[in-house]
Amino acid sequence: MPIKIYLAGPDVFLADARGVGAQKLEICREFGFEGLFPLDNDADVGADHVKIFRANCSLMRLADIGVCNLTPFRGPSADPGTVFELGFLFALNKPVFGYSGSATDYIQRVPAVVIPAGEPDARPWDPNGHAVENFGLGDNLMIVQAIEDSGGSIAVVQEKAGPAGGESLAAFEAFRACLEMIRERVSRGRR
Amino acid sequence: MPIKIYLAGPDVFLADARGVGAQKLEICREFGFEGLFPLDNDADVGADHVKIFRANCSLMRLADIGVCNLTPFRGPSADPGTVFELGFLFALNKPVFGYSGSATDYIQRVPAVVIPAGEPDARPWDPNGHAVENFGLGDNLMIVQAIEDSGGSIAVVQEKAGPAGGESLAAFEAFRACLEMIRERVSRGRR
Repeated sequence: MPIKIYLAGPDVFLADARGVGAQKLEICREFGFEGLFPLDNDADVGADHVKIFRANCSLMRLADIGVCNLTPFRGPSADPGTVFELGFLFALNKPVFGYSGSATDYIQRVPAVVIPAGEPDARPWDPNGHAVENFGLGDNLMIVQAIEDSGGSIAVVQEKAGPAGGESLAAFEAFRACLEMIRERVSRGRR
Repeated sequence: MPIKIYLAGPDVFLADARGVGAQKLEICREFGFEGLFPLDNDADVGADHVKIFRANCSLMRLADIGVCNLTPFRGPSADPGTVFELGFLFALNKPVFGYSGSATDYIQRVPAVVIPAGEPDARPWDPNGHAVENFGLGDNLMIVQAIEDSGGSIAVVQEKAGPAGGESLAAFEAFRACLEMIRERVSRGRR
């Protein structure tokens, strides 16, 4: 039985979500894995958000491993649907890996951060007066550390900016790098 | 023993995070609950993100119920750390409630959404060409439906815009309304 990997990510919001999903499933097969793609765009599930939610939770329960596309989505952080799924998979004790098309730290993606001068221990702030995490991590600490504590890792390959300035959301190169990490981890575990 | 409520939220990023935390714990006591506030700013945990992560996970495991502050944070959605915790609490089968200082639907908070004219079934898009969820929900479907399926609900009280235009992140009125819902739910369960 191949290892089953749940493919969390904002890929479901791409214009070609089904095509991108099919490509990622094919890449999983190349690596000897079975990918499980979220059913947001599945004809059987339709546009019923309750069905989509429950179908995705069932798929996650079936999975051996989670892989989360953490490429920033509509702000400095990963897609919240994806982050929900990370929390769910982590609580079920499944190893979770991540990948991102953005190689920047979280703090670099928050606009207009103010770093208090001459106070090395002071926290940076955003223009709304909210503290900005400054741990040298790619996203919110709960996201990064959950992956670490689950036994997973995050693969990062910077995407070229798209026409609207954002990174390409599918992040295929980082996805392949992530599956490569998982393959190495699995073969080390078997030796 | 009072019911223990984990208070997830971006409140930890407020300049007065400890003060807001203390006030919310006091409000919990008024309602007969014991609040558990995330330890991001706790002196014993310090600025070690690994310790913060594990301390918050331990607190969540202790909790009977989760309450998530879903007020939008740095974008159209809830704080991703909070959403991670929602996924974690949901997977552990704990009832989760939410509250928000924003009464708008998710789609109203995504800038420059294009709604295809004359095609009632067509999906709305953002300027990056990514589909915008249009289920009439306050945030990503995974967030809203997890709360629903856990047996919880979301309390919404629109905050007045702050000086920088955003809603006040602490959302005290919605927080009280949420605790009121929980108290009613608990007393109904006991009758």
